[in-house]
Amino acid sequence: MSAPSTAPPATVSPLSPGPTVAALLADAQPGDSAVVRGWVRTRRDSKAGLSFVELNDGSCLSNLQLVLPHDLPDFAERATPITTGASLVATGEIVASQGKNQRVELRVSDFAVPGGADPDRYPLQKKRHSFEYLREIAHLRPRSNTFGAVARVRNRLSHAIHEFFQDRGFLWAHTPIITTNDCEGAGEVFTVTALQAAKLAEAAAGGDFVRDFFGKHAGLTVSGQLEAEVYATSLGPTYTFGPTFRAENSNTPRHLAEFWMIEPEVPFCDLEGDMDLAEAFVKTTVAEVRARCEEDMAFFAQRIDKTLPQTLDAIADHAFVRLPYTEAIDLLKSSGESFEYPVEWGHDLQTEHERFLTETHFKRPVIVHDYPVGIKPFYMRVNEPDEQGRETVRAMDVLVPRVGEIVGGSQREEREDVLVARMKAQGIDPASLWWYVELRTYGSVPHAGFGLGLERLVQLVTGMQNVRDVIPFPRTPGHAEF
Amino acid sequence: MSAPSTAPPATVSPLSPGPTVAALLADAQPGDSAVVRGWVRTRRDSKAGLSFVELNDGSCLSNLQLVLPHDLPDFAERATPITTGASLVATGEIVASQGKNQRVELRVSDFAVPGGADPDRYPLQKKRHSFEYLREIAHLRPRSNTFGAVARVRNRLSHAIHEFFQDRGFLWAHTPIITTNDCEGAGEVFTVTALQAAKLAEAAAGGDFVRDFFGKHAGLTVSGQLEAEVYATSLGPTYTFGPTFRAENSNTPRHLAEFWMIEPEVPFCDLEGDMDLAEAFVKTTVAEVRARCEEDMAFFAQRIDKTLPQTLDAIADHAFVRLPYTEAIDLLKSSGESFEYPVEWGHDLQTEHERFLTETHFKRPVIVHDYPVGIKPFYMRVNEPDEQGRETVRAMDVLVPRVGEIVGGSQREEREDVLVARMKAQGIDPASLWWYVELRTYGSVPHAGFGLGLERLVQLVTGMQNVRDVIPFPRTPGHAEF
Repeated sequence: MSAPSTAPPATVSPLSPGPTVAALLADAQPGDSAVVRGWVRTRRDSKAGLSFVELNDGSCLSNLQLVLPHDLPDFAERATPITTGASLVATGEIVASQGKNQRVELRVSDFAVPGGADPDRYPLQKKRHSFEYLREIAHLRPRSNTFGAVARVRNRLSHAIHEFFQDRGFLWAHTPIITTNDCEGAGEVFTVTALQAAKLAEAAAGGDFVRDFFGKHAGLTVSGQLEAEVYATSLGPTYTFGPTFRAENSNTPRHLAEFWMIEPEVPFCDLEGDMDLAEAFVKTTVAEVRARCEEDMAFFAQRIDKTLPQTLDAIADHAFVRLPYTEAIDLLKSSGESFEYPVEWGHDLQTEHERFLTETHFKRPVIVHDYPVGIKPFYMRVNEPDEQGRETVRAMDVLVPRVGEIVGGSQREEREDVLVARMKAQGIDPASLWWYVELRTYGSVPHAGFGLGLERLVQLVTGMQNVRDVIPFPRTPGHAEF
Repeated sequence: MSAPSTAPPATVSPLSPGPTVAALLADAQPGDSAVVRGWVRTRRDSKAGLSFVELNDGSCLSNLQLVLPHDLPDFAERATPITTGASLVATGEIVASQGKNQRVELRVSDFAVPGGADPDRYPLQKKRHSFEYLREIAHLRPRSNTFGAVARVRNRLSHAIHEFFQDRGFLWAHTPIITTNDCEGAGEVFTVTALQAAKLAEAAAGGDFVRDFFGKHAGLTVSGQLEAEVYATSLGPTYTFGPTFRAENSNTPRHLAEFWMIEPEVPFCDLEGDMDLAEAFVKTTVAEVRARCEEDMAFFAQRIDKTLPQTLDAIADHAFVRLPYTEAIDLLKSSGESFEYPVEWGHDLQTEHERFLTETHFKRPVIVHDYPVGIKPFYMRVNEPDEQGRETVRAMDVLVPRVGEIVGGSQREEREDVLVARMKAQGIDPASLWWYVELRTYGSVPHAGFGLGLERLVQLVTGMQNVRDVIPFPRTPGHAEF
């Protein structure tokens, strides 16, 4: 049968690693010789003198089936550590598969096991585990089908986001993480300090961080928008892509203390242009993932959310509806629906209202725009009052069926006097953001942008229900291990 | 002369913004009509009835020259706000330039000034400003030639880094920023807390953060490597690209409290493969920036560091020398040089030693590898002792002439027993990193990776001397404004 040969080395140069499992499954022909390196998902021994091993190397959802003849030298002893979770290096010949689940398999001529995985202790056995359990072993869950697929989709989506902006001449700006801006959501800002023990106690008690690293109280950023505006009003279209933080004590499937945000900012742009950009962004990045991650996307549609293709088709196939907030209120009021939360001009839309618009009425994504001034931040551009004297700002939210809000943006207030008045009205000292105000003092331009949470977008394209399952190591109240 | 026309709107859809200044300078032909939007760098009025405006839109270093005839309607009044720093929208016809500095210019038929810049107050006048001064106006410095060029090069380099890894099938892993790992550089970790005032004072005094957001003391990450190893030993080649932090009270041109790191991690890889990858990475990304940012790179070579082309040629033209640490020590000892710091096996190389190797002896980049175990962290793979019983680890540093160390990496210790012994020897409780140890318990594989500071790489390719000038908003002791 198989002639004795030498096991391939456990290492290979990353510059010429040879084909991955994904590449072999796609392209290898019977008669090709191949070396594979990966981790054992399952092993089955047949009475016909063969062992069947499903090997995964992370390059795709599918495993490569390895067939190991029992007449390989010292097989019984050498193959003992080949159990679920073990690493395995194998060389052999590609053959047409007898099984119906794969086109080709590898007839193994020699192998080595760099690291075993004691079957009595390995926490990730073949059986199906709950997502809750897998969160407790976040260091091993990427070895499961679901979390491998999430990782690949998240990677592809992230790179598609970079490509979307780079192809259009945007600059990636690394806006700061540590900041002394305290204009937004002060109660939800994590404190950053280099003080220890007694000195920290003293500073905390007195509320005086003048002896701390940065000479004043510092926190973790909740948004890179204000700094992105600096680049946009100097260098042209800009985007951020980095971590942001909320010290919000919310234990829900929708909240993380640390998550990744994308925030484009465009000079010489108004709200219409901003909506154009947001719609193109969502359509392009979602389409890219569907085209490039076909196998993983089929898995999500089959195993995680059967309505996923329908949700994503609604994004791909239709122009997003653009609906002024005031018209949305009229539409909801005249809908005849009985909502739990009353519909009233001046109040924010609730989830039930958003779902009525996207799922019941329009059956497609809807961009609601021009919201009441009272429910939006100081930096959004103020409109002329309408005929009834109601004031709105040039804000917009992109709402998607089944998922809800995925993008929030606005045209920014570029008029210094209006901006300063709005800051004062909201209790923000303009002097504390002197540099932000100065973008309007010197060479001000109309500009607009939006923000989008990466995890929300990953949830949209995968159908994963809990945000903790779409980020490698979730940070939530009580949880910052790993 | 020019017929009256309508000034173009100050806004345009970002999906069809029209050509940038960079595109016009490269491709526009006389007779083309064009609309440009940007900021005024200089204005000069001639006695021949023309005004010359240098307009920059951030798309490139060069300005587009606009020629404004004084017989445009109401010119004198409407053109008053056209001063350095003002924003300007102009429409007109491309004409061949009479000047020797540009191929084409724009003969303006109408214009508008969305925002002026009071010449008596604008902090960024035409004159040359010191980098120290510009740091104080970090919100305006991107409007200067140098900082615009830095921003474009940093962007291009960052995207080239993503492309390098994505082209090779690596996954971008978003490793956590907030962490309760306290294994590395504990004294240099920023504390992250959601406690306020009295509660923070109490926790700090008692050293007990059990009531804090994460239920224990949390800090800002100093490296994503340990978490990247999770992905690499599950899903294949992985890289991180994100912010990292050091609470080091160092006021030097080389230190930042917040900077961006890239950390690839590769399974089934040894130190040789790691060095292959590092060399290819540096060569490829540097070459990409030189090819794609020609104008900005010429500016740096002319205005910032005349030796820059020579430094970068040394990277491009030669294979990097690979020199075992022990041989480096012998070479330094027998060099006849008198060093300030003594050369002795077991001590780290000092800058003067590194410079001798790269600049005097080899005159090219040098990778020093296999360092003494005593000066390296617990996670590096331990070699067999040499003939003299000296212990080394599979570490490597990439040293570049004039710049020094730009990459530090290692093969990781994949043997659980050796890893645990090393942790204990360094006073690290293996239980505190149980999940990291378990990567060796279950399906362990040889693996390797390296880390590289983005800012150091930007300094290498631009010649900029101070690290505060290659990141948009530097964080240093006493400085976290903007």
